[in-house]
Amino acid sequence: MALSPSVLKALSAIVGKDHMTRAQEDLVCYSYDASSTAFMPDAVVFPENSQQVSKILELANQMSFHVIPRGSGSGMTGGVLAVNGGVIMVMTRMDRIIAIDRENFVAVAEPGVVTRDLHRAVENQGLFYPPDPASSAFCTLGGNIGECAGGPRAVKYGVTRDYVLGLEAVLPSGRIINTGVKTAKGVAGYDLTRLIVGSEGTLAVVTRIIVKLVPLPETVKTMAVLFDSMEKAAAAVSAIIREAVVPRCVEFMDKASIQCVKEHFSFPVSQATEAILIVEVDGDGNTVERAAEKLEKSCRASGAVEVITAETPGDAKNLWKARKALSPVLFSLAPDKINEDIVVPINKIPNMVERIKKLEEKSGLLIVSFGHAGDGNIHCNIMFDKRDKARAARAKAAVDELFAATLELGGTITGEHGVGITKMAYLDQEMGEAEIDIMKRIKQTFDPNNILNPGKIFR
Amino acid sequence: MALSPSVLKALSAIVGKDHMTRAQEDLVCYSYDASSTAFMPDAVVFPENSQQVSKILELANQMSFHVIPRGSGSGMTGGVLAVNGGVIMVMTRMDRIIAIDRENFVAVAEPGVVTRDLHRAVENQGLFYPPDPASSAFCTLGGNIGECAGGPRAVKYGVTRDYVLGLEAVLPSGRIINTGVKTAKGVAGYDLTRLIVGSEGTLAVVTRIIVKLVPLPETVKTMAVLFDSMEKAAAAVSAIIREAVVPRCVEFMDKASIQCVKEHFSFPVSQATEAILIVEVDGDGNTVERAAEKLEKSCRASGAVEVITAETPGDAKNLWKARKALSPVLFSLAPDKINEDIVVPINKIPNMVERIKKLEEKSGLLIVSFGHAGDGNIHCNIMFDKRDKARAARAKAAVDELFAATLELGGTITGEHGVGITKMAYLDQEMGEAEIDIMKRIKQTFDPNNILNPGKIFR
Repeated sequence: MALSPSVLKALSAIVGKDHMTRAQEDLVCYSYDASSTAFMPDAVVFPENSQQVSKILELANQMSFHVIPRGSGSGMTGGVLAVNGGVIMVMTRMDRIIAIDRENFVAVAEPGVVTRDLHRAVENQGLFYPPDPASSAFCTLGGNIGECAGGPRAVKYGVTRDYVLGLEAVLPSGRIINTGVKTAKGVAGYDLTRLIVGSEGTLAVVTRIIVKLVPLPETVKTMAVLFDSMEKAAAAVSAIIREAVVPRCVEFMDKASIQCVKEHFSFPVSQATEAILIVEVDGDGNTVERAAEKLEKSCRASGAVEVITAETPGDAKNLWKARKALSPVLFSLAPDKINEDIVVPINKIPNMVERIKKLEEKSGLLIVSFGHAGDGNIHCNIMFDKRDKARAARAKAAVDELFAATLELGGTITGEHGVGITKMAYLDQEMGEAEIDIMKRIKQTFDPNNILNPGKIFR
Repeated sequence: MALSPSVLKALSAIVGKDHMTRAQEDLVCYSYDASSTAFMPDAVVFPENSQQVSKILELANQMSFHVIPRGSGSGMTGGVLAVNGGVIMVMTRMDRIIAIDRENFVAVAEPGVVTRDLHRAVENQGLFYPPDPASSAFCTLGGNIGECAGGPRAVKYGVTRDYVLGLEAVLPSGRIINTGVKTAKGVAGYDLTRLIVGSEGTLAVVTRIIVKLVPLPETVKTMAVLFDSMEKAAAAVSAIIREAVVPRCVEFMDKASIQCVKEHFSFPVSQATEAILIVEVDGDGNTVERAAEKLEKSCRASGAVEVITAETPGDAKNLWKARKALSPVLFSLAPDKINEDIVVPINKIPNMVERIKKLEEKSGLLIVSFGHAGDGNIHCNIMFDKRDKARAARAKAAVDELFAATLELGGTITGEHGVGITKMAYLDQEMGEAEIDIMKRIKQTFDPNNILNPGKIFR
């Protein structure tokens, strides 16, 4: 579906000729995301405000072309790819933090704001926006809303949906709606806000975001807990969660992960270290002290070899730097990876660890696991080289088995990355025809001409 | 729309003849809720499981009759009334707590479970389900989900939607769906769970509920803070919220409220007391001690006359008994009330208090205010006698002005009671045609024959 000259002219008139491109080198840049798949779009536009977004969508309905909204392209499941061609609509020009309301614990921002920029801006005022995906240094709030991003602090603080109070969004028809409230409570009408959060840019284009903030915790304490077996680490996670002290993060890394990023740590890691947990507690000074002691004791009882407390903010930062570097650095192990963000009930983590180990043996492929153990969210990376057809096939088969095991243990195939295109074929393993059917009908209600980010989530 | 003999026969075959009634005295019982309005249904059925619910809805589509799901009928906005006749479907037989999973902090329950029964069951195991509507002694979880119930603890803990992980629900077509997850995270497909939460029984009938639990706080401290002016109390609320200590509750009562329930207090209340705040903090012992000191100091700085700390759990219980008794006891002041649960941004509470005072003067009617000041959620009760036509008209006019002021201050017309029938005429003051239109189309997608709880939310 090539775009006609009249469509291109109209698009250019809407956004201005400097904010639209068809240059091959630009199209390539916007052809991929973090999912290792690529589809060439026909054009890329950079709207400046919701009116322009509205006009682009109106035009798309009239002239039958696809519009795919996009932030930084850090998504893991291909949600921003132009699978059937069309126009990539990049939201990064809409990057203003419009208001930080200290008295009502609310911020208002545009979708192109980089998550870390919001973090810094509110923290400067003694406020806190907890959602913190590993890509926070470059991902955008709009993308976070599209996927309902989570991150490590979800253990205590919840995920993106728990912080979005209201939205300005443009429906596929071009109509601009305002959902939700600017207050702590609000139940007028259906919850369009949370229907749009996590809808992967298929129901509406978010153009303004109202988020809830909380007070910035007085103190944060970060610990690295080293184990000589993955099983002990998994058992420690269950034990921590039973402690009735809610840490803000319980991250884990397996041996392969540790080896990949060990130069970031400010402590030596012996070859015998099979797993590391990063445990972080926050709150007022006293509470944090007591909580940290309790959790350290619990970890030692579960067989921790060493508990290293970050003595300086720099030490803690290094730990997180290591953790956050993991996803991209894995490519040093193999040229291709399939990264799945499965979730299992917390007490099933030991079972899942065992299943992954067996899968590794069976497939003969390296499977690197790390992630948000505190909420059962494991990032499983199956490493391979796609030029080796046999290994690529074994990697795909391993994904099938991984998801089957996850669902058997009462889990879900995606905790925070969304379905996009990479998990589309697996959605009906998690849910039945009735659930998928009503979701598809919701999509149709919002987007009868299927112009907004088509070919995602549902087969 | 009378029910035909064949419909009645079929209904009786589905639920069993002992679980269906058409007796006039029963119909009267199920003709009203807490909104002071009544509509006679044609029949009442009491299904036992989701299969029966499914069959009833299938029959309703075939034979064109309305089905109105209902819990305890404690709703404030007429959401469970048979406005166009039809069959009231009472969910109270489905009242089992199916599982309390201590290891994964999850409970599974049926919709007919009384909220307080869930509280007690989980607290016995050291767990906590925070949503606590004032009607918790008799309202049901199904109703809480229908309205997205809030209550006093929302300041710290959020509302019902923040605790519902997944649902089994029957669509108006009779199809049974399972939404959401049993895990802390999950983003596969659209968020049907939160679309159903707060949809006031118009999109689906909830038949099973998976909720998230948190650890039971170690210590709770409850304080009554007395003020000689409402303005000072309102200012104190803003000051408390700025303290960066998040109390779990900040409730307030105005003078009329206090006079209504003063015999419940375990301390004397002088005539000069114009407002009382109930401030509650929870957490571990040390934190609670420090937080309570901080908040007491803050309240005194805002002009509190007296700060009374509940010395025993019994004292605290009495305070809450007074607060929870308020809504029904107001009828001792006048035979009729219009109870609106407006919300304003927290720093606008003083302005709202002033507006309410002016409205009281202008209308010549007693307006009693109390509620969840900590999240800006004020329960405004306009007292009158509907036999006095002039006063009844002034009460209606006062509601118009109350909502206009609320929206002008950036608030919402309903924080936790829903729209039902009583706020239907005001919905378009809060939102525009585009928002209402997409909501109506969602309703149509779920319920093309409009058989499930019709005539609610939208005009």
